[in-house]
Amino acid sequence: MSDPLHVKAKLRVIYGDTDQMGVVYYANYFRFFEFSRSEYFRAVGGNYTALEKDGYGLPVVSAHCDYRRPAKYEDLLIIDVHLSELRRASMRFEYIVTRESDGERLVTGYTVHACIGPNGKPTGLPESVVKLLRP
Amino acid sequence: MSDPLHVKAKLRVIYGDTDQMGVVYYANYFRFFEFSRSEYFRAVGGNYTALEKDGYGLPVVSAHCDYRRPAKYEDLLIIDVHLSELRRASMRFEYIVTRESDGERLVTGYTVHACIGPNGKPTGLPESVVKLLRP
Amino acid sequence: MSDPLHVKAKLRVIYGDTDQMGVVYYANYFRFFEFSRSEYFRAVGGNYTALEKDGYGLPVVSAHCDYRRPAKYEDLLIIDVHLSELRRASMRFEYIVTRESDGERLVTGYTVHACIGPNGKPTGLPESVVKLLRP
Amino acid sequence: MSDPLHVKAKLRVIYGDTDQMGVVYYANYFRFFEFSRSEYFRAVGGNYTALEKDGYGLPVVSAHCDYRRPAKYEDLLIIDVHLSELRRASMRFEYIVTRESDGERLVTGYTVHACIGPNGKPTGLPESVVKLLRP
Repeated sequence: MSDPLHVKAKLRVIYGDTDQMGVVYYANYFRFFEFSRSEYFRAVGGNYTALEKDGYGLPVVSAHCDYRRPAKYEDLLIIDVHLSELRRASMRFEYIVTRESDGERLVTGYTVHACIGPNGKPTGLPESVVKLLRP
Repeated sequence: MSDPLHVKAKLRVIYGDTDQMGVVYYANYFRFFEFSRSEYFRAVGGNYTALEKDGYGLPVVSAHCDYRRPAKYEDLLIIDVHLSELRRASMRFEYIVTRESDGERLVTGYTVHACIGPNGKPTGLPESVVKLLRP
Repeated sequence: MSDPLHVKAKLRVIYGDTDQMGVVYYANYFRFFEFSRSEYFRAVGGNYTALEKDGYGLPVVSAHCDYRRPAKYEDLLIIDVHLSELRRASMRFEYIVTRESDGERLVTGYTVHACIGPNGKPTGLPESVVKLLRP
Repeated sequence: MSDPLHVKAKLRVIYGDTDQMGVVYYANYFRFFEFSRSEYFRAVGGNYTALEKDGYGLPVVSAHCDYRRPAKYEDLLIIDVHLSELRRASMRFEYIVTRESDGERLVTGYTVHACIGPNGKPTGLPESVVKLLRP
């Protein structure tokens, strides 16, 4: 996948994202990742809701995050997301979180997703999704 | 409803509950309320999952919280919950959150719930629920 | 306070905001309220971080929410926030959450805030804040 | 580290932990991990609050989770946590989440923590912590 599409989602850190260390709580970056995934699907002309209406799901099977520097309250974050792997029945997204004000790279991570069909079992990705993701 | 049942749910504050003021984030008390409601249903011999399997739901229509003193990381909290009102198609729970170590009253609040039937419309509470709640 | 400033904050519902009823979890609206408050302070030319640097805080002493209709995954929400009361040592914000696509009013609520000074005790609002909020 | 201490923390899934797939939202397992870490420190006779009072912190530098089967609302979860690595200035915890009712293994993961000293810089673990963790 040479030259993949990168989508950049923006998000302002709120009080509710922080913890008593005064920085974003580590679990919340996975929320941010999900936010950017949803923007990604929208950017390629799809949306996750339509997928679910057809009875499919893309549950996370693996999630990882490396924390370099902390994001703080009121920071405007840019979550850069791209699809780094697209297989018959799974896909992998990678994320880079930077702070807009100084471009500092704060956090990187990835998620791996399987495809679940209408019967609740693993299945190949529906053609409609593959078309969106591999144009 | 003289002498109503009070159920006391216990919960330890984690890092993820706090914000950068070093105290529990205000929205999280509503999570704690829900935790105690679930314990309440269990204490009266029911459970919410069974209710949902029959197609019913008890969505919150109103929620309120008064914050007196802040709870902190690692505090062991006692959430005292009781049913203060039981009507044909709604109910009201009240909550008192204290810290176990010193008995300090930290937060009080209430939630009002409607009953939604299998068709998604407001309906009277099913008999099975009324029996549990008004023994 | 005739003709108060209304600030409209926009927010897309993510998966992590929903619960198994398929709607936004009731506690999360208080997160949305906070998000809009932060936008409000920014809109009047202030920011909450500066206030905290001076040792002040505006903790929530009371929070309330009425739920009319549920917000769903991927809904774009508009949180309309305005200051409905400004006293010597407290203030009250009111919130109206609508869905952008159809203008449907989903949720309303309010929060009341006290002012805490550098010594951790209730105090009058600092002049700098009053100037921002009552121009 | 042969025969390390395993601490088992118990936790009931609430509505607020689930998402519209009807299962625990993927980011929330990292909250559960943190809950069990806090129980771990308590089990070895320490607590995280004391560490912070001395000006130290153990921020997460890396977090990972593999999702095998979903946890559901009202499931009672057992989070088995142990220290799998203890270095001069870092440590690694591993987690296994099972459902109590059937012993099913749902999720596994790990977190790696650095030690930050009173000056905010990486530092060796304080002697008091090492004593607790390597008895």
